[in-house]
Amino acid sequence: MSETEVMPVDTSTRTIPTVGYAAYAASEDLAPFKFDRREPLAHDVLIEILYCGVCHSDLHCIRNDWGISMFPLVPGHEIVGRVTRTGDHVTKFKAGDTVGVGVFVDSCRECESCKEGLEQYCEKGAVLTYSAFEKDGKTVTYGGYSRQIVCDEKYVLRISDGLPLEKVAPLLCAGITTWSPLRHWKVKAGDKVAVIGLGGLGHMAVKFAVSFGADVTVLSTSASKEKDALRLGAHHFALTNDEEQVKSLTNQFNFILDTVAGTHDYNFYLNMLKRDGTMVGVGLPNEPAHVPAFTLALQRRNMAGSIIGGIAETQEMLDYCAAHQITADVEVINISDINKAFERMEKSDVKYRFVIDLASL
Amino acid sequence: MSETEVMPVDTSTRTIPTVGYAAYAASEDLAPFKFDRREPLAHDVLIEILYCGVCHSDLHCIRNDWGISMFPLVPGHEIVGRVTRTGDHVTKFKAGDTVGVGVFVDSCRECESCKEGLEQYCEKGAVLTYSAFEKDGKTVTYGGYSRQIVCDEKYVLRISDGLPLEKVAPLLCAGITTWSPLRHWKVKAGDKVAVIGLGGLGHMAVKFAVSFGADVTVLSTSASKEKDALRLGAHHFALTNDEEQVKSLTNQFNFILDTVAGTHDYNFYLNMLKRDGTMVGVGLPNEPAHVPAFTLALQRRNMAGSIIGGIAETQEMLDYCAAHQITADVEVINISDINKAFERMEKSDVKYRFVIDLASL
Repeated sequence: MSETEVMPVDTSTRTIPTVGYAAYAASEDLAPFKFDRREPLAHDVLIEILYCGVCHSDLHCIRNDWGISMFPLVPGHEIVGRVTRTGDHVTKFKAGDTVGVGVFVDSCRECESCKEGLEQYCEKGAVLTYSAFEKDGKTVTYGGYSRQIVCDEKYVLRISDGLPLEKVAPLLCAGITTWSPLRHWKVKAGDKVAVIGLGGLGHMAVKFAVSFGADVTVLSTSASKEKDALRLGAHHFALTNDEEQVKSLTNQFNFILDTVAGTHDYNFYLNMLKRDGTMVGVGLPNEPAHVPAFTLALQRRNMAGSIIGGIAETQEMLDYCAAHQITADVEVINISDINKAFERMEKSDVKYRFVIDLASL
Repeated sequence: MSETEVMPVDTSTRTIPTVGYAAYAASEDLAPFKFDRREPLAHDVLIEILYCGVCHSDLHCIRNDWGISMFPLVPGHEIVGRVTRTGDHVTKFKAGDTVGVGVFVDSCRECESCKEGLEQYCEKGAVLTYSAFEKDGKTVTYGGYSRQIVCDEKYVLRISDGLPLEKVAPLLCAGITTWSPLRHWKVKAGDKVAVIGLGGLGHMAVKFAVSFGADVTVLSTSASKEKDALRLGAHHFALTNDEEQVKSLTNQFNFILDTVAGTHDYNFYLNMLKRDGTMVGVGLPNEPAHVPAFTLALQRRNMAGSIIGGIAETQEMLDYCAAHQITADVEVINISDINKAFERMEKSDVKYRFVIDLASL
């Protein structure tokens, strides 16, 4: 889509006035936006949002990079808040509970993926938390840069109060996006793991892989990241634009998590995999990967991709984080500073996630 | 390498005169060639070659497509023959035994891959059966388009006399190249498997996948292959240049074996994988694959490559083939017809493997 569509706000079933920040058109600065949330249905909870992480996808969507954005667009899918009201049939939550909402708020519930608890791969497409249609095919979803959200309890996560909540918010996307592939490909103690890129995703990947007992190397083009990589627990750091450092990396890793969102040379990194090693991309660059057949075949290497995680594994991750005191490194901002935050995020000038304090709204 | 090197034949350790067919320079027709094989060492067996399959790699090497050919070049790595003499410490074989030699005749024996019986992924590079250096770094190997071969028993396979030997020869490359990934990725009864391309590799892949109980679809651009695909046991056939037939194939397969050697659209086929499905390339095109990140990530698809197989799994395959009466479909030729055979092979005019009867030499 070269043009973006301005969607009318459907108010017929929405009775709870709320306020947020929206992009009114592609690439415009975010500005205050009034809209309504639906009255909680039988299985819904109404959540007062406390914190919302600022994800790179938010910027992609504001710019309509993927051609699927609908405006006005309220971003935000790393949501932590408190339940204020529950529908009649809600059983998992009660008012006062601390909860989270991630990248999707519903899914078909009937396909194989949904039945297996992998709702992120719903064959009909999970209902994304913002700029998507609810299952009615017409109601547009609005994200967490807002005061409240209403969500079916099945897609709401329990959050421990034992962790600083602003640091928990990024777990709902940056956390699960890296946790899920590390778990799915069974990264374990002793494995040699590389993480490409030390940003919002990368810094969570390092924390998780280290906590699983892997031997972790951060691969980066910025020498300035070395100190932080080691502080975050990585065992090694390699500057990938330094020929000397790169030489020793061929055939070294069992698993590489590639968090880079920009165009990059996949072949360069694939050659760092040992035989039977796997490189998983979670960064979703627009440009296709160029992969020589020999690079994969000569060492039976694997290349894969992964998106976020299902509700069950997101809950598992949140519980693990509570038990192991793992959270994101964040910089808390007021919502009025969101446009400046995007500018800094684009320059990778954030360690490692901006999180909006919704009390500032 | 743009120029090809003519290697002198090292006769110092070679005392057994033999004869074969060689390309004397890149892209030249094969012609008779006299050379010597080494006297069997303590662990060697001397093999009288009965049949040798004609593999597409033979043609790649004659043309120096991969830049690693040495001339004169005696191709052939699908070798079946009879032991005529054994070195003093040979324990696996005795004179008169029917045996096979595949794509490599030695490896470092010390690296992790060699120790695990995956010699094809030897970290120092397995010693290829032709146009490679032995481990002495100077003696050039000559392949099976010849009367005799000498090989360490560790790299020699036992062959059952219960099968027609000319149909067994292609198992040593076409067979194991498809067997190994089907086994490694655990293709099992009920799996939906697609085989791209119905040639020497593809027709073996169909036979194996069918015998494992998978539901097998042949994907081809030639309508003329349908009849044969079904005769070989495939359950379905889809013409991939027919839009109607292609429509229903999205998200259909657990496993795709891609045997195509020419440039092709990987994304087109990757989209046919179900969630968590794997596509494995064994065809080694020169052109890199172009793979959109979303295609892999949105259904957690995997793409991998694989080459031939180790000695242990090659033996396992040969034993399985003997037990299940599985062999290649072949057209037996005299060695004097080899150049004509290459011409026909290039037009895919062979069902499905030429095999040289070395009695014709």
